[in-house]
Amino acid sequence: MNSHTPIHMIDLILRKRDGGELSADEIQFLVSGAANQSIDDSQLAAWLMATWIRGLSAAELNALTTAMRYSGETFDSSYLGKTTVDKHSSGGVGDKTSFLVAPIVAAAGIAVPMISGRALGHTGGTLDKLETIPGYKTHLSLAEFERVLKIAGCSIVGQTTNLVPADRVLYSLRDHTGTVESPYLICASIMSKKLAAGLNALVLDVKTGTGAFLRDQNDAVLLANLMVQTGEAAGTHTAAILTSMDEPLGRFSGNWIEVWECVDILQGHAHPMSADLIELTHILAGWMIYLGGKAANANEGRVISEGLLESGAAYDRFLKMMDAHGADVRVFIDPASQHQPTVTRIFKAAHDGYFHCANCTDAGWAVQRLGAGRSHVGEPVSAHAGLEMHVKAGALLKEGDAICTLYADNESQLHQAEKILRRAFALTEKMPYRHPLIREVISRGR
Amino acid sequence: MNSHTPIHMIDLILRKRDGGELSADEIQFLVSGAANQSIDDSQLAAWLMATWIRGLSAAELNALTTAMRYSGETFDSSYLGKTTVDKHSSGGVGDKTSFLVAPIVAAAGIAVPMISGRALGHTGGTLDKLETIPGYKTHLSLAEFERVLKIAGCSIVGQTTNLVPADRVLYSLRDHTGTVESPYLICASIMSKKLAAGLNALVLDVKTGTGAFLRDQNDAVLLANLMVQTGEAAGTHTAAILTSMDEPLGRFSGNWIEVWECVDILQGHAHPMSADLIELTHILAGWMIYLGGKAANANEGRVISEGLLESGAAYDRFLKMMDAHGADVRVFIDPASQHQPTVTRIFKAAHDGYFHCANCTDAGWAVQRLGAGRSHVGEPVSAHAGLEMHVKAGALLKEGDAICTLYADNESQLHQAEKILRRAFALTEKMPYRHPLIREVISRGR
Repeated sequence: MNSHTPIHMIDLILRKRDGGELSADEIQFLVSGAANQSIDDSQLAAWLMATWIRGLSAAELNALTTAMRYSGETFDSSYLGKTTVDKHSSGGVGDKTSFLVAPIVAAAGIAVPMISGRALGHTGGTLDKLETIPGYKTHLSLAEFERVLKIAGCSIVGQTTNLVPADRVLYSLRDHTGTVESPYLICASIMSKKLAAGLNALVLDVKTGTGAFLRDQNDAVLLANLMVQTGEAAGTHTAAILTSMDEPLGRFSGNWIEVWECVDILQGHAHPMSADLIELTHILAGWMIYLGGKAANANEGRVISEGLLESGAAYDRFLKMMDAHGADVRVFIDPASQHQPTVTRIFKAAHDGYFHCANCTDAGWAVQRLGAGRSHVGEPVSAHAGLEMHVKAGALLKEGDAICTLYADNESQLHQAEKILRRAFALTEKMPYRHPLIREVISRGR
Repeated sequence: MNSHTPIHMIDLILRKRDGGELSADEIQFLVSGAANQSIDDSQLAAWLMATWIRGLSAAELNALTTAMRYSGETFDSSYLGKTTVDKHSSGGVGDKTSFLVAPIVAAAGIAVPMISGRALGHTGGTLDKLETIPGYKTHLSLAEFERVLKIAGCSIVGQTTNLVPADRVLYSLRDHTGTVESPYLICASIMSKKLAAGLNALVLDVKTGTGAFLRDQNDAVLLANLMVQTGEAAGTHTAAILTSMDEPLGRFSGNWIEVWECVDILQGHAHPMSADLIELTHILAGWMIYLGGKAANANEGRVISEGLLESGAAYDRFLKMMDAHGADVRVFIDPASQHQPTVTRIFKAAHDGYFHCANCTDAGWAVQRLGAGRSHVGEPVSAHAGLEMHVKAGALLKEGDAICTLYADNESQLHQAEKILRRAFALTEKMPYRHPLIREVISRGR
């Protein structure tokens, strides 16, 4: 008999069920078994549910993240000869900071290899927005990805099927078995993919509020702490910025219209409704520049970020990245002219009052119903549909004032979205309480 | 749109995960989906694990038991024109009361339609024991079962595949996903099968102690209470007798040798080592006779049981049942002569001391290793293998005194069993504490 006791999945399920802890070897066995399908879905589902309820120790979470990270191909950025830093957002409505922070941080001399996802549920997807740009290739070979990073310093691409295959299996099973919203499982899923890209530093935009997946700030703080611990344990400087997602970020929520908003900002003529987006961009980019070693602290990083945006250096990086990805950059000359919605309607205040977004998730669902999001994987999204906000929370409106403009491909979509927006938006007698944009920062510094 | 909201399995998983309660309709949906395989194993596994950890309310447990009970064929005993009463044991070592209580209670004028199982793990199986009797058919058609019940008043058979199909699916999944030992799921599994037989009353022998599946008495009390509640809610008088399983019950543990022990008792020449078995038999039969309406209370039922055993009326029923099942009843004339083990060894006290069975589950595993039990479903069992106890807990032994005799088909089995028995048995300086055979009775009476 071998001196190593063979590992049986049933024993791991029983231990987790009873609140016990698994060893790194046992978690490695489990993740390999998930990736190569040698452990069946029913046993994985039982373990996922036990883990959802019992949680994971710090050691288990590190072991799970590490095992998942190495379950497939990993990306080695050392050939770039540069520090690599990425940003990850937990998802929100109108969240388009990637298009701004990537070129800004690249302009600061840091490589930004950014692997992004698609719209699902009430939140938009970076890849869907990029695909409204004629010619932009979201899926690159590893060699092409490396080439773009050398040319532009930043590249935003979709996930390859070979990166973290264990996450694909576990994520689809979690979605099917009611085990998605575990901070431990979310942390392992996000961090395994980010760490597989071989980053020196990572800045996490963890959203909380009525438009976030984690509405409760305590849940968001727990997730943020877990991700910072896990990143640091893997040798990647990690900071988590807890940000408010209580109303759509910036001016537009949709696909092409979000690209348009960013191009306006990069070209130096930002719309006033983009102020919150620009503030968040500089804070995230400031942290990335600091953790990437190009500033003494995050505030200095923020000042550098502002300078790189104002000087046009960031827009230059943006155009280089677009061109290297195959995009027809002529569309950026007059982005407003590229917006051709079929139907348009102005959504007005039904009575006087202070405006606020009572349920920002519903505002996200309205964007989805307008045709900008999808209700199931694989559904096409509209380039032109979406929401243009004309006011921010706290604005005092008169009856009939415009709150937002809706863009869609047909009347039925407008009608559905209006119905949802009537319950998403509120007009109150008193000035509503507004959370600060940045609620908390979790970081051990550099 | 229909006024009934369609039920989605994912919502049931999420609610149970978060500690909520499912409606009877939702549980019916889930059980039907398990039985007809329209809900896949991974979703069932997630629900089973959530249920294992969160438990079930009384209403949920009743709904689950009822939905499982009616998931296939049920047995209607009304044509018998008699009260029907069954007994169920949670499983132990040397537990052979079925062979005694069935004919005793039948002799009291009550029908006993008994559906039994096979050996698994450290406990024996009634069907395996019956199959050592030449000619005995354990699987009867419904018509044959009814015929035997008319002739003998009792019949012991295996479960048909059409009875409670939902339990087959769920039980095999529980075994695979670490969700067996839930008092709620155990209750639903046992009670759905018992209630599908359409009983007027049911007596449960819930074992606790070192040889029971539920070693902790609190767990056994919880299960007993759940089963009594569930049975009563379904209109079946139900009593649970909490009994000690701290050493093998009676003289023999095995297959044919257990039949032999019972025949000796039925014929009126019981071996002194069978005293505990006989005591337990009369208590269980006494409760069955009382709940079946043939005695004013359980004590009176016990006196009736003793009379029916002593008069030979029970043995008469036993022979009638055997004959009706196709058995060659000549083997009962001299059952000892039918015992032909290949190898035999006496297990002796290694030193002086008070004997007790420190771990009765291990004694059960020794019986299994001798060849009387099985390590996986479908494995054949030996008719002749087993354990004959020569002493009971509390006996003061001298070094070299015989504790038990081992019977097997080969030397290797003897050797393996001896190794296990060395840790199962103990000889101590002080008299060991012995739990009473009957620890508690849970019943609402009749």
